[in-house]
Amino acid sequence: MRIAIDAMGGDHAPGLIVQGALDAAKEWPDTEIVLVGQEAVITSLLQGQAPSNLSIQHADEVIGPDDEPVRAVRRKKNSSMVAAGALVRDGQVDAMLSAGNTGALMAAGLLIVGRLPGIERPALAPMLPTMDDVGFLSLDLGANMDARPEHLLQYAVMGSIYRRKVHGMERPRVGLLNVGTEAGKGNELTKAAYELLEQSPIHFIGNVEARDVLARSCDVLVCDGFGGNIMLKAMEGTAGALFGEIKSAFTHSWLTKLAAAIMLPRLRTLKNKMDYTQYGGAPLLGLNGLVLKCHGSSDAVAIKSAVRQARIAIQGKLTESIAVEINGK
Amino acid sequence: MRIAIDAMGGDHAPGLIVQGALDAAKEWPDTEIVLVGQEAVITSLLQGQAPSNLSIQHADEVIGPDDEPVRAVRRKKNSSMVAAGALVRDGQVDAMLSAGNTGALMAAGLLIVGRLPGIERPALAPMLPTMDDVGFLSLDLGANMDARPEHLLQYAVMGSIYRRKVHGMERPRVGLLNVGTEAGKGNELTKAAYELLEQSPIHFIGNVEARDVLARSCDVLVCDGFGGNIMLKAMEGTAGALFGEIKSAFTHSWLTKLAAAIMLPRLRTLKNKMDYTQYGGAPLLGLNGLVLKCHGSSDAVAIKSAVRQARIAIQGKLTESIAVEINGK
Repeated sequence: MRIAIDAMGGDHAPGLIVQGALDAAKEWPDTEIVLVGQEAVITSLLQGQAPSNLSIQHADEVIGPDDEPVRAVRRKKNSSMVAAGALVRDGQVDAMLSAGNTGALMAAGLLIVGRLPGIERPALAPMLPTMDDVGFLSLDLGANMDARPEHLLQYAVMGSIYRRKVHGMERPRVGLLNVGTEAGKGNELTKAAYELLEQSPIHFIGNVEARDVLARSCDVLVCDGFGGNIMLKAMEGTAGALFGEIKSAFTHSWLTKLAAAIMLPRLRTLKNKMDYTQYGGAPLLGLNGLVLKCHGSSDAVAIKSAVRQARIAIQGKLTESIAVEINGK
Repeated sequence: MRIAIDAMGGDHAPGLIVQGALDAAKEWPDTEIVLVGQEAVITSLLQGQAPSNLSIQHADEVIGPDDEPVRAVRRKKNSSMVAAGALVRDGQVDAMLSAGNTGALMAAGLLIVGRLPGIERPALAPMLPTMDDVGFLSLDLGANMDARPEHLLQYAVMGSIYRRKVHGMERPRVGLLNVGTEAGKGNELTKAAYELLEQSPIHFIGNVEARDVLARSCDVLVCDGFGGNIMLKAMEGTAGALFGEIKSAFTHSWLTKLAAAIMLPRLRTLKNKMDYTQYGGAPLLGLNGLVLKCHGSSDAVAIKSAVRQARIAIQGKLTESIAVEINGK
């Protein structure tokens, strides 16, 4: 199988991206890694270490974190991200991954890779943290701000297939993000989506409240991009504020600093629990090929681990399975 | 001024509600308190202590926490909540407060008290916590799940007036709950609302992200009932999960228990920070009279403090100011 990696996207690009690609190529000799980006830069970073399953595809331009997504994808035709997307579109690779501009990657997915027939809205589907460190898949987390009930149904189907194919779950529990657990709760969107989900063959367990997701009340959480983003940022903000306060409480006196010394390893574990970047790359589901969004802060380990994730998805025929499921209805 | 108190609603009704009403009547002799509920029960609780500014209005029925809101309000015409609402409607009291069924109180507000002319959707507007213990007003937090841009504009106007009149803020900063801070971010609703808010005379400071609200990034947060509920429950869930983990980390060994002993007072303070029930009752804004929702767990202190809040709102002519502002446009 062949996987393209956008060498130029991410906080640690190109250095640690190239390093992660190199590590992946060495770990999986059966996988051809194509590093897409500025050839001279990548070549000098590789220092002649590249194994035969690692190649470079030159692309001059770079889409930066502050570029306006759609415009960047339309104008920077020879950027590493767009070029990697074109490789997926043309069937030259089975998957691409990028730690670059999230909005631009979603635009590249839509405009360059293209949607699967039958899919109206691709969805960004990251794993979010749970207290038991297992996590849950949440979609859509921002590919589309507005959604119709049918879109939420498609998210549910795609999310279920992803968890089956990539995480080996037999019967992932799908929940609908809502303001109460009873049927009939919610806004017009979730009320209508509830009925569609109930009639669908997925394992729909009903409405799920934002306060219960950290307890892993479902395996796939379905939401529109707006609501999902509000939930995620409220979680991040609360965790950040509380850790900040705890830190300042611990530095109050020599006695509290003693307590801090005792508690530090445990609190660090707790902080890591909330870090959803630990859960790997987020697939953009519903595209005509596999596109994985790696966190902007990805280091070499994160890139290698995203390659592992892509390998499993390719082996499990994720994209083909989604196409069959969506069009089989 | 006259304030009606639903004696039968809340986890600690009628005992602590009656106690709170009694305390308030003693504290403010210029305020007539009308306890609405089962007369025999209230009389026996008062034990002959009632000052002359405390009276009882008998109402047979009680709306319980599990009653379906609209049906309960329609059928239980002689419930304490509906009877208190009727007192507001008929101008016999200036305000009512209840710690009972939130949905039923919102229905009673709409169906019994009625909307102010020009207001399409009343909004539930609780204070939510901030790390500096000042808090921010957030609306709508669940009176209506769906909203149109014009509704969000009305929420902004009503919230601003409330903070001016009740909290004495000169120029409350109004933020729009959104997925990014830049103009142009968001779903169809927030994009359209942004433009309306920008053109309005309120002090609109732009989009606010859910991750920043605990840092008091605004004084009034405008959102639809669905998004606001998702935000609030995500905050509650995250804080609850983290405190749970911290507690278990502290009980791990005798050494961590020692650390716990040192840190306990500070962590308790932190936990209280997140408790939005500390911030008083939530007004239902946009009604033809003042209706205050007290938290279900309200004790006598909370009831007395809600009476204080109602007194300030009445003295500041909150309802009249909203009517003028909405219809002056």
